[in-house]
Order: sequence, then C-alpha cells, then structure tokens
Amino acid sequence: MLPTPVTRLIELFSRLPGVGEKTAQRFVLDLLGRDELCRQLGAQLQDLANHVRPCEQCGGLAEVDAERPMVCAICRDARREAALLCVVSRVQDLMAIERSGAMRGRYFVLGRLLSPLDGVGPDQLPLESLYRRVKERGIEEVIVATPPSVDGEATALLIARDLASMGARVTRIASGIPHGGELEFLDQITLGRAIDGRRSMIGG
Amino acid sequence: MLPTPVTRLIELFSRLPGVGEKTAQRFVLDLLGRDELCRQLGAQLQDLANHVRPCEQCGGLAEVDAERPMVCAICRDARREAALLCVVSRVQDLMAIERSGAMRGRYFVLGRLLSPLDGVGPDQLPLESLYRRVKERGIEEVIVATPPSVDGEATALLIARDLASMGARVTRIASGIPHGGELEFLDQITLGRAIDGRRSMIGG
Repeated sequence: MLPTPVTRLIELFSRLPGVGEKTAQRFVLDLLGRDELCRQLGAQLQDLANHVRPCEQCGGLAEVDAERPMVCAICRDARREAALLCVVSRVQDLMAIERSGAMRGRYFVLGRLLSPLDGVGPDQLPLESLYRRVKERGIEEVIVATPPSVDGEATALLIARDLASMGARVTRIASGIPHGGELEFLDQITLGRAIDGRRSMIGG
Repeated sequence: MLPTPVTRLIELFSRLPGVGEKTAQRFVLDLLGRDELCRQLGAQLQDLANHVRPCEQCGGLAEVDAERPMVCAICRDARREAALLCVVSRVQDLMAIERSGAMRGRYFVLGRLLSPLDGVGPDQLPLESLYRRVKERGIEEVIVATPPSVDGEATALLIARDLASMGARVTRIASGIPHGGELEFLDQITLGRAIDGRRSMIGG
C-alpha cells in the first residue's frame, strides 16, 4: 500500500552496513519532503558509481577522467615526498592518516591482511605490485601502517622481510598509549608495547 | 585529496537522522564498487523527491500521477471499510498499523500532537480537515491511535470531545501489556492501564 520509491528505498538502504529495516524506514521518512537533499544524494550516488574507481597506482580512490589514467589526487600530487611510501590495509586507514596531516609521502593500499585462519596467504595480497613500485620509484622508506593486530603484525613482518632483502628501509608505525588514554584502563599488550617502544627524552 | 563524490556523499549522508561523519564514511566506502546498488539508490531517491507527496485526503504517502489528484493507495482502495477511520500522529504509525493487518478502514495522519509546553495548540492540528472528512464521508467509528503519552492522550481527548458533540463514535486503541511482555519489568502506568482496561473472558 506504500508508494514504490518508499518500499524500494527501505529495501535498498537496509543493504548498507549496520542498517536494519527500522533504520532504513527512518531514513526514508526523514527524507520525505527534503527533496533537495534527495536529489543531491541521488546525483552523487550516480557519480560515485560512474566516476570513482580504485587508483591504478596505490589502490586509493581515483576520479575517472578521460584525459589521464585512473590515478588518484595523492599519487598525482607533485609536492608529496616521492621517496616515502605508507602501506595501509584499507582506504579507511589512508583517510584517517591523511586527516592526521603527518604523512608527507604517498600510499599503497593492500586491500586486505594476511589471515592464515581465513585462508588468506601472501598470494592474495598485491605484494608484487607493491615491491615493483618500491623498486621502480626509488622509494627509500616504507612505513608499514597495518593495524597492531595479529593479522596486521604478520602482514607487516612479511613485507619488512621481503623489502629488507631488496635493500629498502622499512619502518613500523608506533604502538602505544593513545593521546588522552588512561594507563589504568589500557590492556596489558598496549602497555607492554608502550614500554618496549620507549624513547629517550632530552638529548637521547 | 578525496574524489568529490566521496566527500560530498559523506556530508550528505551525515544529514540523515542518527548518522554521524564516521557512519556516513562507512556507508560511502561500503558503496564503493557496488555500482548497481549506487545506481538503484540514486534513481529511487530521485523518484522519492519527484513522485511522492502527502495524500490530499489522509496525509499518508501518495505517488504523483498526472491522471488523478494526489490520493494514496489506501484512500483509493475500494475494499476498505468506508465508515471506519483511524487517526494517527505520524506516517510511521500508519505503516506500523498497516503491517499488523488489523485495520480494515482508512487513516488520517495528524502530523503532530497537541503539546502545550511546546506551544502546539489545537489550531496547529488539521482538525478542521479531520472533522470535515468524518462528516462528509459518513464515518461511523473513529479509532484514535495516537500514542499513550501525555501529548497523545491530550490529543485523543480533544478529538473525542469534538467528535462526540458531532454524534460520531470515537474509540481509543487499548493500552496494556505488550505481547510477550514480562509483568515483572513493566512500569506502573502500563500495569495500571492493563488492569483498568481488563475485559471479561468467556461470555462476558
């Protein structure tokens, strides 16, 4: 008994992560009468489908452009340090690091992590492509920014070993107490890593 | 450094109720590569803006159609009991009652409730339109299905008094223990209403 766009939208919205039927219905009812927002969302969703693709160089997000190959804005940015490459697991992580403003080089998105339990071995990672980039682009330092989880550490170790044998310098992002974190409430592993990773103050 | 559709979509999605920037970003990254879902969502959102309007008779959801005035499928459905009208506060409530399958009549959506504290008086409710419909359409019973809250009860009482003076029968949906509810954990008001609203069993 409901208009087709309403029932169809509820069904489509509930395919988004963490969105059930109730939430999807709430979205649709909230959008009723907000015609301008509907039209903008509709147009940008079409644009996302038609104009955004993985960057051919780093796996990040590139905008389709007839004039040049699918390369993202970061890979095209000449002000970036060409000899510095940051390896991340997901595009989300790339976005988070970009927001920090601390990374002056470029990125390489693996897309997934080693996960022997889930049957993800080295062959399923784009390592060939990463190593070729390191070799051909004269990368001097590779910062491995995979998460400090079992899978993230295993992936970092694999990359570090492979690249060391190729003569590149590989570093790992620091693991320790987050800004504003209360030592009292942190887990043992994080605290252990914070102690192990201690740095000398004043002079060093 | 991100493609325009990505940043624009994150901003637009975060205007939905209960969606912050993190959730909006999660939606967009999940939609990357799901081009068919993006296109369908985009098209249906445009349709929602262009083809769904409030029903001129009941305030529910009608699909725009050049051939007839903006009247919803329920108001047009000849199998509905013409003498039975259910008054609800919001379209969401209409949808919930429809799902129950227990309502054989038509609806009237108030859009809001009386709320003296927020300055919403009888003049801000579409009561004229409701009373006209009751009178002109030969409605014999009006079921008031506003929620059992202070504002919902006040609105129900106002409608009941006005319609009683016009000779129409007004009923109120039952308030009591929900299906599967544990008496032990219910609030006093609900339990009190369940007792007050008791019905005789076997024969009556």
